Amino acid sequence: MAKYSIGVDFGTLSGRALLVNVETGEELADATLNYPHAVMDEQLPCGKKLPPDWALEHPQDYLDVFAYTILEVLKKSGVSPEDVIGVGIDFTACTLLPVKADGTPLCFLEKYKEEPHAYIKLWKHHAAQDKANKLNEIAAQRGEEWLARYGGKISSEWAFPKIWQILDECPEVYEDADFFIEAADWVIWQLTGVQTRNSCTAGYKAIWHKQKGYPEKSFFKALDPRLENVVEEKLNCPITPLGKKAGEICEKAANLTGLKVGTAVAVANVDAHVTAPAVKIDGPGKILAIMGTSTCHILLGTEEHNVPGMCGVVEDGVYPGYFGYEAGQSCVGDHFAWFVENCCPPEYYAAAEKEGLNIHQYLTKKAEKLKVGQSGLLALDWWNGNRSVLVDVDLTGMMLGMTLLTKPEEMYRALIEATAYGTRKIVETFRANGVPIHEFYASGGISLKNPMAMQIYADVLGIPVKIGGTTQGPALGSAIFAAVAAGSQKGGYDDIFKAAGVMGKLKDTIYTPIPENQKVYNQLFAEYDKLHDYFGRGENDVMKRLKEIKKEQSK
Amino acid sequence: MAKYSIGVDFGTLSGRALLVNVETGEELADATLNYPHAVMDEQLPCGKKLPPDWALEHPQDYLDVFAYTILEVLKKSGVSPEDVIGVGIDFTACTLLPVKADGTPLCFLEKYKEEPHAYIKLWKHHAAQDKANKLNEIAAQRGEEWLARYGGKISSEWAFPKIWQILDECPEVYEDADFFIEAADWVIWQLTGVQTRNSCTAGYKAIWHKQKGYPEKSFFKALDPRLENVVEEKLNCPITPLGKKAGEICEKAANLTGLKVGTAVAVANVDAHVTAPAVKIDGPGKILAIMGTSTCHILLGTEEHNVPGMCGVVEDGVYPGYFGYEAGQSCVGDHFAWFVENCCPPEYYAAAEKEGLNIHQYLTKKAEKLKVGQSGLLALDWWNGNRSVLVDVDLTGMMLGMTLLTKPEEMYRALIEATAYGTRKIVETFRANGVPIHEFYASGGISLKNPMAMQIYADVLGIPVKIGGTTQGPALGSAIFAAVAAGSQKGGYDDIFKAAGVMGKLKDTIYTPIPENQKVYNQLFAEYDKLHDYFGRGENDVMKRLKEIKKEQSK
Repeated sequence: MAKYSIGVDFGTLSGRALLVNVETGEELADATLNYPHAVMDEQLPCGKKLPPDWALEHPQDYLDVFAYTILEVLKKSGVSPEDVIGVGIDFTACTLLPVKADGTPLCFLEKYKEEPHAYIKLWKHHAAQDKANKLNEIAAQRGEEWLARYGGKISSEWAFPKIWQILDECPEVYEDADFFIEAADWVIWQLTGVQTRNSCTAGYKAIWHKQKGYPEKSFFKALDPRLENVVEEKLNCPITPLGKKAGEICEKAANLTGLKVGTAVAVANVDAHVTAPAVKIDGPGKILAIMGTSTCHILLGTEEHNVPGMCGVVEDGVYPGYFGYEAGQSCVGDHFAWFVENCCPPEYYAAAEKEGLNIHQYLTKKAEKLKVGQSGLLALDWWNGNRSVLVDVDLTGMMLGMTLLTKPEEMYRALIEATAYGTRKIVETFRANGVPIHEFYASGGISLKNPMAMQIYADVLGIPVKIGGTTQGPALGSAIFAAVAAGSQKGGYDDIFKAAGVMGKLKDTIYTPIPENQKVYNQLFAEYDKLHDYFGRGENDVMKRLKEIKKEQSK
Repeated sequence: MAKYSIGVDFGTLSGRALLVNVETGEELADATLNYPHAVMDEQLPCGKKLPPDWALEHPQDYLDVFAYTILEVLKKSGVSPEDVIGVGIDFTACTLLPVKADGTPLCFLEKYKEEPHAYIKLWKHHAAQDKANKLNEIAAQRGEEWLARYGGKISSEWAFPKIWQILDECPEVYEDADFFIEAADWVIWQLTGVQTRNSCTAGYKAIWHKQKGYPEKSFFKALDPRLENVVEEKLNCPITPLGKKAGEICEKAANLTGLKVGTAVAVANVDAHVTAPAVKIDGPGKILAIMGTSTCHILLGTEEHNVPGMCGVVEDGVYPGYFGYEAGQSCVGDHFAWFVENCCPPEYYAAAEKEGLNIHQYLTKKAEKLKVGQSGLLALDWWNGNRSVLVDVDLTGMMLGMTLLTKPEEMYRALIEATAYGTRKIVETFRANGVPIHEFYASGGISLKNPMAMQIYADVLGIPVKIGGTTQGPALGSAIFAAVAAGSQKGGYDDIFKAAGVMGKLKDTIYTPIPENQKVYNQLFAEYDKLHDYFGRGENDVMKRLKEIKKEQSK
């Protein structure tokens, strides 16, 4: 009898289950539920208004996802729950909630229904920026060695700024919470009845280190004396490496999902990181780019190095036994979306419609006829700041080389090229700091939809570009981890490498660098590199000064 | 009885006459004739094809302009030819033709009907670029002192590159020509029966200096031994200062135009320069910007200074008795036209239409709501290279500061601001080199149509901006010079200052710098200035290197 596993991918607006054949990787059925409460960024369900920069979610929505989507994929595929050997999940992160000792979210309690701090702070909750700033300042003053592991900066999206905001603005919730927990770990708790913590979110989002643990008490005390014991008091749970089993489906969860009691449940994971096995990544040197509105880069290494501008390096953070490196570009697809919304004339929309193409396809069709360098344009991909390697949200976009004959498709291509140069800068920074890279794997919409872009990446990077073979990268990755949690005795796998090799998928097409393009792109990248450093490393801080003036004049 | 004068403005595609009351400046009638042959840039009338970069005109068209438009303004206004005391003209320059000793254009001769070099080379004939390059190289090698008077570079549009091209490619025409003459002077010859040469085109376009004359023979010999005596052989005619009478309407011209024999005819002039009296410019310190697709700047000085990047300094070149300075910005209205054609989305066009505005009006309406610096954007106005002060056609456009929230109206405004910064750079360069400027006069479409742009210029420059009060600046200027040619005894004026004071026109609105805007623009200009020098003065020649790559890849 064939065996199956289920991966559930919890996104920003919906949750999706995917049922996969463990022996072939075949995707048999998927089902999606849009969160009934969606993102709460204006008000709570009771109508209470939220301040700017808030973004909350409701934990009931995640339970609804389990209830609806798992039953649905079983039904659609006709697979019996008996043959489902494991379940895995991945989540956005840091998406964090306060819970009681038994796992009950504080927002489920009557007394906290109208308290925003009792709800889940979604990854993109940005109202703890002042806390992040202060945390970074204090960490730098104290010379905290861990700061370098996070590219020199802790994001306001991460765990401690969010927890600190709760303490500061709503001490009752802080006091009443027995744990602050990632939603990823919380949903696993709901499936298994046991609390676990995964090494990925702990490492990347909560400053945890496998050998050194969390930052020391004196640091937290320096933030706020009430935070001195935050780890013991609010995060007190051992960390489990990725690739392990968190537990088994408990009776309550069996009733909720239709799965059998005892089905293996994998340790929670994060949407980007979990994608690595889905594209067959089986070791170091292979950088994975999950390309969407922004790009997240995942890379394995055998040693821990501090790489400037990386988002984090975490042992067991991607695969057990390896150091997982993360880097990022804050703006990739968002550049192209901005461009078509703001810079593309009516004739282009009309012509695209006439040819039955969307505007991106139409621009690409025109842009792919250009030779490398033929537009004379060069851009810096900083419309949303620069994450890696400069870690500077105050940088802004730049384009030069325009003449009166410059066409929209040339600017569009220049933006695509700029993101490729940004990627090369990241790749070269890893290499220069002792983390080798020799292949590039791409996953996500752009990688499947835009062959021109992928050839540009191959030509700019000078290494082969392989494309993930599924549109469901995270869900497939979760299903693969689920098969590993089940283990070979149950028909699954004993390690993630083997499972990735069988269940992961790549497109047949590999984009290989074209030597004559590479030659010109090397010249263009040298120009990008020079401007990158000129505008990005303090030689001319014009972008920051303009932002200051803008801020002043927008008051 | 009231007295009148007529100004005829010969543009690139048409000629226009304007009949003006000499005592009030009132414009009574105007009439336009589109040149029947238009610009010949693809073929001759006989069907003979022209190579790329050629642009020719046909002298018969100018005679047709006289014949049609002068009769027409007399008819429309009901003014009797008896009461017309003078005629003046202005022309594009350098627009040059080979003629026989009696003024007959070589292209009127049967034997040259099919010879392109026998026709008029229009100002924008660009096929003599290699000659200009060689001329500049040789002049620089020889350390010719006059080179600095032209910002260090003689344009391919000017007289000697065009003459040299004729010699090189068609020695018969060179040999057969008794004179090479500006079309401006040629049409005056047709009106008066006497050849004259004006100090404006001689000075700005043919390297003539009131004290030093033309370059010396050894220079021409160094270009080509056959050119050694080009001045005596082909340009042998005294130069008359602007503001003088060239002669009087001859019988032939009276028959052609309906004017009386003996009517005063002013020395020929150039379209930009002739505009100064039309906006009441009455002395030094007042810079005139004729703002169209590009901008031409005209300024009087009491001394001769070499100002980096100016297009020329010529004694009597604008007003008699003063040094006339010219500078230029290669791309002004062209920037905005490029933007609306290439960078403005369908919603904007639709909304503009709904509001009954054209797209420029709509963008301006949105842009004028922005505070100074609120967009966070900064651009370099080099979409068509930089004329003054860098004299570098290989520079290209640049914009920075874009974010995902940047809107089209912000970029549109940034382009307008960039042209204002470019103007300030010119103004500051004049000042730094001993030529004072304390008022700014604007003429041309943009100055009348876009109050926001004019306020930006006032705020950026920090000096008052006055706007010419006519849409017919050049034709009015020509009519003013015509009244001066007639002299006070005939009811005109004895000097151009007096005539300009009475007949010139300014709008009532004066744009005065707003101190709080000025303060922010000073900060922004400092940023422009820094990038101007970084990209424009060799610190980072990325624009040129990209152009090289572009050239290579466009082959």
